[in-house]
Amino acid sequence: MGELTLHNYFRSSTSFRVRAALNLKGKEFDYVSYHLRRGEQSSEEYLQLNAQGLVPALQTPNAVLTQSLAIIEYLDELYPEPPLLPADPLARARVRSLAMIVACDIHPINNLRVLMELRSRFSADDDAVAAWFRHWTETSFSALETRLSNESETGRFSHGENVSLADLCLSGQVINSGRFNVDMAPYPAIERIHADCMSLDAFAKAHPLAQPDA
Amino acid sequence: MGELTLHNYFRSSTSFRVRAALNLKGKEFDYVSYHLRRGEQSSEEYLQLNAQGLVPALQTPNAVLTQSLAIIEYLDELYPEPPLLPADPLARARVRSLAMIVACDIHPINNLRVLMELRSRFSADDDAVAAWFRHWTETSFSALETRLSNESETGRFSHGENVSLADLCLSGQVINSGRFNVDMAPYPAIERIHADCMSLDAFAKAHPLAQPDA
Repeated sequence: MGELTLHNYFRSSTSFRVRAALNLKGKEFDYVSYHLRRGEQSSEEYLQLNAQGLVPALQTPNAVLTQSLAIIEYLDELYPEPPLLPADPLARARVRSLAMIVACDIHPINNLRVLMELRSRFSADDDAVAAWFRHWTETSFSALETRLSNESETGRFSHGENVSLADLCLSGQVINSGRFNVDMAPYPAIERIHADCMSLDAFAKAHPLAQPDA
Repeated sequence: MGELTLHNYFRSSTSFRVRAALNLKGKEFDYVSYHLRRGEQSSEEYLQLNAQGLVPALQTPNAVLTQSLAIIEYLDELYPEPPLLPADPLARARVRSLAMIVACDIHPINNLRVLMELRSRFSADDDAVAAWFRHWTETSFSALETRLSNESETGRFSHGENVSLADLCLSGQVINSGRFNVDMAPYPAIERIHADCMSLDAFAKAHPLAQPDA
């Protein structure tokens, strides 16, 4: 085993964020997969690593880190190049707020475990589950698109000419949304930024279909 | 109007986090209230400030900041005393991950707008909505309790002897959970830390019932 082990799942968009961040920082990692639909993340052994029973978790020589955004901020503090947050506090606040539109207001509501509860509590069928997924994605993509297209700080990427935490979240969510047929036509800025992200090796290598458990 | 204006709602737990952070930093702010059940956060005027139509938003002389955690990190960078994050990267990662258990994995799934969708899409009644709220709170409080009670870094507060970002999230969620009768008996560490937080003026002043729109 190397220095860093990433406990994750190919299709998890939060895992994607951390894989791409590690790639951007040039850090190799061992890949351990948990098949979420089979509940492997709820084993006693994994709960010892992450009491939440969620992926991803990053095992370092000193601690096991959880929560994708906390992991990425840690990587950015420890390995500053290339930076995933700008230097200016206002700019940092902008990047974090763009990231959290996805990380707080889309992903958690559309997580696999939430969709499973909709099925078991409310007898939601495939169509109802997909409609739920699309509703929350579209609600927040609409706001994200407005900001990215109106705010002068937007550049080739969400914030200027360099990849940031916001792009890690954006791109992971766009990939995920493809599975539920979200119509991307109303979100040209998001699509454009996602395409530029995916042209980078660090993002391409992090893509779900490029993972060993795909 | 002063330098800082907080657009918020007394009962919003994300608003609570920012109010308490501003109080801890000793920053005065003008209070503007949006009645969420009446949809005041969806007015054209407010959408100009925050395209997401969510509270809180912090208006500063330079920009309008959104997303409570991004706002709090900004305040901490601009006004370092007292710090809301420790100095060491691993410790910062711990505090952020504890905060995000609440900020990503409880609050967004139990937000008013999500509960309203459960009613309109799945005809969820009051009992079903309350059961949903309790399920997600209990799932994540259980993991948070395990971490707070097992990890040696826990002190009087979530991380050592000083209030941090993690406590702002924890306390806001505990207050919110009272409305849906979450049984707190299984979470003594969370309850103890919440009680210590509420003994501080900065937290007491941020309590929903102490706000002008309560």
